[in-house]
Parts: sequence; structure tokens; C-alpha cells
Amino acid sequence: MSVSPAPQGVPVPGQAQTPPASPASPAVPAGSGPRTVAAHRDAVEDLLRRWFLAHPPAQESVALDSAAGRLLAEEVRAPGNLPPFTNSQMDGYAVRTADLAAGNRPPGAPAMVPLATAAPIPAGSAPPPLLPGTAAPVMTGAMLPEGADAVVPIEACIPDSFLPSAGPGGTVPAGGAAGTVEVPAQTPAGQFVRRAGSDIAAGAPALPAGTVLGPLQLGLLAGLGLDRLTVRARPRVLLLTTGDEVREPGRPLEPGQIHDANTTLLRSSLEEAGAEVLRSRILADSPQEFIARLRADVAADAPDLVLTSGGISKGAYEVVRQGLAAHEVAFLSVAMQPGGPQGIGTVDGVPFLGFPGNPVSSLVSFEMFLRPALTAVTGAPRPRTEVQARLTAPLGSPAGKHQIRRGRYTAGTVEPVGGPGSHLLHALAASNALIPVPVGTEHLEAGAEVTVLLLE
Amino acid sequence: MSVSPAPQGVPVPGQAQTPPASPASPAVPAGSGPRTVAAHRDAVEDLLRRWFLAHPPAQESVALDSAAGRLLAEEVRAPGNLPPFTNSQMDGYAVRTADLAAGNRPPGAPAMVPLATAAPIPAGSAPPPLLPGTAAPVMTGAMLPEGADAVVPIEACIPDSFLPSAGPGGTVPAGGAAGTVEVPAQTPAGQFVRRAGSDIAAGAPALPAGTVLGPLQLGLLAGLGLDRLTVRARPRVLLLTTGDEVREPGRPLEPGQIHDANTTLLRSSLEEAGAEVLRSRILADSPQEFIARLRADVAADAPDLVLTSGGISKGAYEVVRQGLAAHEVAFLSVAMQPGGPQGIGTVDGVPFLGFPGNPVSSLVSFEMFLRPALTAVTGAPRPRTEVQARLTAPLGSPAGKHQIRRGRYTAGTVEPVGGPGSHLLHALAASNALIPVPVGTEHLEAGAEVTVLLLE
Repeated sequence: MSVSPAPQGVPVPGQAQTPPASPASPAVPAGSGPRTVAAHRDAVEDLLRRWFLAHPPAQESVALDSAAGRLLAEEVRAPGNLPPFTNSQMDGYAVRTADLAAGNRPPGAPAMVPLATAAPIPAGSAPPPLLPGTAAPVMTGAMLPEGADAVVPIEACIPDSFLPSAGPGGTVPAGGAAGTVEVPAQTPAGQFVRRAGSDIAAGAPALPAGTVLGPLQLGLLAGLGLDRLTVRARPRVLLLTTGDEVREPGRPLEPGQIHDANTTLLRSSLEEAGAEVLRSRILADSPQEFIARLRADVAADAPDLVLTSGGISKGAYEVVRQGLAAHEVAFLSVAMQPGGPQGIGTVDGVPFLGFPGNPVSSLVSFEMFLRPALTAVTGAPRPRTEVQARLTAPLGSPAGKHQIRRGRYTAGTVEPVGGPGSHLLHALAASNALIPVPVGTEHLEAGAEVTVLLLE
Repeated sequence: MSVSPAPQGVPVPGQAQTPPASPASPAVPAGSGPRTVAAHRDAVEDLLRRWFLAHPPAQESVALDSAAGRLLAEEVRAPGNLPPFTNSQMDGYAVRTADLAAGNRPPGAPAMVPLATAAPIPAGSAPPPLLPGTAAPVMTGAMLPEGADAVVPIEACIPDSFLPSAGPGGTVPAGGAAGTVEVPAQTPAGQFVRRAGSDIAAGAPALPAGTVLGPLQLGLLAGLGLDRLTVRARPRVLLLTTGDEVREPGRPLEPGQIHDANTTLLRSSLEEAGAEVLRSRILADSPQEFIARLRADVAADAPDLVLTSGGISKGAYEVVRQGLAAHEVAFLSVAMQPGGPQGIGTVDGVPFLGFPGNPVSSLVSFEMFLRPALTAVTGAPRPRTEVQARLTAPLGSPAGKHQIRRGRYTAGTVEPVGGPGSHLLHALAASNALIPVPVGTEHLEAGAEVTVLLLE
């Protein structure tokens, strides 16, 4: 067991000084020494997978207009054909190709067949059947009349524009033919015809359960006539930041205090990833107060995940580590820099992750562990795009560490920004990519090709 | 002038049959024949640039928590140092390196210097000055005492853990030294010290005007203590869909009618791109009704852009084209497929774009023209990521057209989805990329490398 003990020599009042009994949680590592990034990612994924298998997300009905970014709870099948009726792909004339079997023009000239023009077909209505020997003006998207089996585009006809009797926009004169149009004899059946159900047939699977609803998917559902959708409830995250020295933005600082960046970094990252953040609260640095309030919040909010930042490394005042000493939580070291100290386990049965307190460390922990696990287990958010890029400057990386540098990606190159320091918020804000430097690589030259994760 | 006339032979009641007088708008093309995609993109950008130069976005004050995706209206300078005070980068001992000048260990052993331990420095407080010959336990992020100029990590000290007198978490005993610690003589000044202002100095530029506020930027602003931000108002778009045959999702269809996909496709795309959609309304196919309601909405809503879909090609019932015949709007052909017919100009002085009515055409028009113009002129949304990918299947493209196919990008490959048809919503919903096939390329083999635009 590599469950790390409380810091040596620091008594924690009211709590045993021995490590907690080996938790049953699979999140606790079996080996000793730092975990690999991949192993910890797997452990986080496994933790969330077990939870959501036992506690599947609730289903919610939402309006089409409010569904952007949500996940379909169930497969959607087409309630009807799309298109709902056979219609024209062109502005032109609907014809019966049987009428065109014999051309009547001289050899060498295009074989054109004269047809009597029928009443034009306005959009949004059901036309009468097309009589043999006639051609009906039809606009793109309008219903083909019964009997018609092809559309001749207007520019292939003589005359090559619509007759005045086709009527002004929206108003079509009642009644029959008002002239003649010549159309090419060589008009194959089915030409420029969009068959009912050719986009998707009634009853066919339109989108599978778990689909993330972006504009393209919402467009299809709108086209299918659906104005309400059944979606999965968002993952609910209870977010807590710790630290006696941490103050909310907008509040004045006393000497030794800093403003809380982690809550904002993690809340906005979680929300962008589709999670619902239930509370984001700064807790003072007392283990007793921390665990009491955490358990009360877990009971009240029924979160899917408790996420903390800070208080988990090996200092003398590690409120999260000390407060959770009697819980099924392991505090361990991942061979990653920044973001090496990590907590993982359960609190009163609810998945728990403890990220380190430095802002860059917490953001890197989110991107390397929690975001991929959410994607794998819940289907959202989409994975970060990985692209190849050439370094504009050399990079060093400590031996034995999976280093995650921040950088600025532009058109095939990536510029490292801000050095390895995990407190550098200004450099982080100038970044749009993470540059992982895996274990085994301790130096990269300028110009080296690396795989970067785009953060936007 | 290539301003296209109304469809030949179709009288439009109450409107002149001659083309409108040449508009002064620079959006109207000077040449004849189809415009290139690049030329139309430039025209759309120019239209928006002129508007926003004359009508700069208003400024709004928003809470930090509500600022995700917004653009900073003004440069933000750091109101104070970050970090606000010089602090420790490690859990360890704060020392005065002058105390370490002479080692007192035998040759060959690490030169260690004994120092009396001072009171530990709790996070969030201002410690007293560090007396010569003493070392103060200090945790990561805690303030260095006056006189200290380096931090020795705990694991480099003897003993290599904190003494019981460092006190339990959060509670530090009052009063002075309670023992001795040995630290390495070879401790350079400045080691593991984060200087006040080393992330960003008070008064220095933190983020420029126009910055898009994602999690990383919001994290910096939180760290700087800012809880309210001044952002630019979102671009305001009046979105109108036309068509007698079009019904809102959720309403039953009569024969010949279809459900409206365009409003949802364009509204969700616009909102995802950071625009505010003022009204999204289906207008019946009467040119008179269309222009009357459009002008009333423009007067009431003061939009930055009017966007329509449908009613702009060369059919007999083109409500947008006919309704805007007396306005400074050009209806033209772009050498793009789908999305060739385009309208551009102004209505009562407000920028106007008319997209074609087929859903895929309207989405492609948004991605190829409007989204890049918004990015160029307003600074948001971020540009689509372009990546190289190998086709999994051959593609044909019509001569003289910039074809935009839809595809599914996965790890360096892109699979064309759904053929060239512009009505295919189901295939569109299965896509996550656009595959542009520029003019001059009429065939691409499977395995050919193409540049695709990622739609997510």
C-alpha cells in the first residue's frame, strides 16, 4: 500500500496518526512509488465509471432551443420521413419521363419535346396529379405532383425562364395550362428528384443515445419536427477550494493572503465541459471544519463528484489530507509535473478527487485526468483536439516526470509560455495548448515535433 | 454590374421590374460572373467592419462568474502584484543564506549548517522578521519573513520532516524556536522563492482589450482579485427564415410542408459564436409582408446584422430577393457548392446577409463567410481549427466550384459523409468537419491529404 501517511511528526487532534485502513476503493494504487499519468487517468475513469453505473444520470426534458451542449438520453428515431414528401431539387418543370420517349427534333439538334404547361406548384401545398403530356413549373423544395418522375431545370428548357402565368411570388393563379414548354427528351427518371425519406426514413435511427447536441445535431432534430428533447442530467460537481490564505476575488487582502484563482479556473472549465457546479466555496484551513462542511454538503447536494483543490501535499497544514484521513481516500504522487500530488477515493460513497492547490497544477490535473474521464464515462465533453506542432524553443523536462508545459499554438508551431512554475497565472492565460513531455524525454530541441492538446 | 435581376417573366406587383439602381455599398461586386469564395468572404468582412467602425459595441459590466466567452472591452492591468507577496515555492525552511556561508561538517559529507528553528509560518499571515541564525518552517505559498532569502525543501534538511512543535494543521503555537534543524550550506539565494510580482507586476498589462475570456483568462483575472469585468456587448443578429412551406418544430405538417431546420442551425451556430440572436422568426412568402416586418424589426431591435435564409435564388417565388429589390442589396452567385446563391448589402443602413434556404447551404454559408467575418471584425469566435487529414474515400468536385463537403474527422483521417446534396440533414448531423475542395481540383483519390475545418 502506498497510501501516504499524514506528515510525520505533525499530530492531528482527534484523528488517528496511523494511515487509514486500506480502502476497498480500486482507486488506491497497488504498487509503490509514483503512479504513471496513464495509470492515474485510468483510476479516475474507473472511479467515475463505477459511480455512474450505479447512479445513471437522470433524464430531463428540455426545449430544442435550450439543448445546446446536452447529451441525448435516448436514441432518437425519425418520427416521419425527411424530406416528408418527394420534392424538386431545382427550379424547373416536373415531367413524366414516359412523355419524353421519342424526340421530335431534327438529327444533330438536341431532342426537345413540347409539353403543355400545367399550373405552377407553389411551395407548401399539395399539387393535383400531373396529367400526361404536361409539365408543371416547380420550385426547389416544392412537392412533385403524382405522376411526375423527374425535374428539368429551367435553364435546360425552351423558353429558359418561367412564363408570366407562373404568377407573382406566393400567389398562383387557379386553373390549368397556359402555354407550352419544350424539355429535353434525354431526361432520366429520377433526375433532380428528392425522394421522401431519402435523407432519413420514418422510423430509422436518427441519432444514438449519448449524442452531444451541437448545431448540426439540433438542426436535424428541428428538421424532424422535434421541439422537446430528452437529455441526460449534467454531472453534478461539488467544488471546494481550501486555504486560510485564500480570499474571494473582489475582497480586500490582508498581508499574506491571495485571491482565489482555482475556483474560477475549475468552475469555468467544468461548466465548459458540461458539468453543473453545485457549490464553489472556500473552506478555511481546519481539518475538522473541512470534513464537517464537506459531509454536510455531500448529504445536501447529492453530487456525482467532490472536487477539492489544495491541501493534499506533504506540508504541515494539509487540510484535505488531514480531514479525510479516516475516509477511503488515497493521497499519492503521480509522475507528473506540475500536478504530482493527487487525492482519489470516496467520501461517504461519493467519488472524490483532490487536486493540488497551485492554479496551474489544478488546471493541468483537470485536463489530464478529470476531463478525459468525463469524456470516457459520460460521453462529454468532446476530447481535446491533438495536433502535431514544432517547438519554437527548446524544452527541458525533469527525469522521471511526465511534464506538462503550457504553450501558444499557431499554425503548426507551438511556443512554450511561462516556464515550468505552477503558480504562473499570467503565462497560463496566454496559453492555448498543453505540451506534454512524456517520461523518458528530458530535452527537446527547438524545431522538434511534439503532440499538443488544444485547449480551445 | 452583376446585380442579378428579378427572375425573368415573373412580375412582382408593386415593384419595378428593372434591377435596383447600383447600390453604393462596397458589398456589391464590380465584375461579372460568379464571385470567388475569398472575394465574398472579404465582402462580408468589409460590410461588418464598416458597420462596427461606425457603431462600436457597447460596454457591459458583468460578474466574473458570468463572463465566460465574452470579450474584454478594455485592457486590464494588474491592480497589484501577483503573487502579492514573496512566498515559498516548497514546504521547507525559510533561511538567511548569509547564515550558511561556512559549513561545519567533515570533508566528504554534505556540508550542513545547524540553525535554531523559529515559529512556523502559517498560511495567510504576515510572519515576524527571521532572526539571524534561525530557520522558520514555511509551507508552499506562505509569506517569507523579512530577512529570509531562500527556502530549503524539507527533504533536504535534517530531520527531513517537520517537528511536532510545528503544530497541528491550522493551529500554530505562539512563540519561538523549539529545536534545531540542519540545512545544506550550498543553498543559493533566491532558491525556491517566488518574488512578489514575479507572475505579473502591479500596473503591468495583464490582458489586452478584445481578449476572449476562457477558463485560463478568467483564472488570471480572479487571481488578480477582479470580480467584475467590462466586456463588449455581443453582436446582435436579427435572424429570419422564409418560406410558405416552413413550419416551426413541434407544429403538425400539412401536405407539402416541412419543419424549419435553418432557424435552429443558424441560431445555435450564432450563439455558439458569441452572438445574441434577437428574433428568429419564420416569415410567410409574401415580399410585401417580408419587407414590412423586416423593416419594423430592424427599427425595433437595432440589430448589427440582418440574416435571412431562403428566398434568394432564381426561382419564381423568391421572397427575400423580391422584397429587397428596392434596397441596397445585391443577389449574386458565389463559385461555391453548396451555398452558391448569396445576398449581401444593407437594409435601412443595417448590414444584411441572405443565405440560401437549404439547410446545408445555410450552414456552409455561415462557416465560410459569416463566422470568419465575425472573428476578423469583432475578435470572436476563435477561428476554426484547420488540420491535415487523409481522405478515406475519393471525392469529386464540379469544375469551377469551391466545393464544401461534410466529413467525419478521426485521428488524421476524414471520411466524406453524405454526398454533395444540400438538403441532407442526417448526414450533416453525423459530420464534425468541413472538407473544402478548391476550384481547380475536380477529383481527389482516397488517401489524398486535404485540409479540413473542425466544426467542434
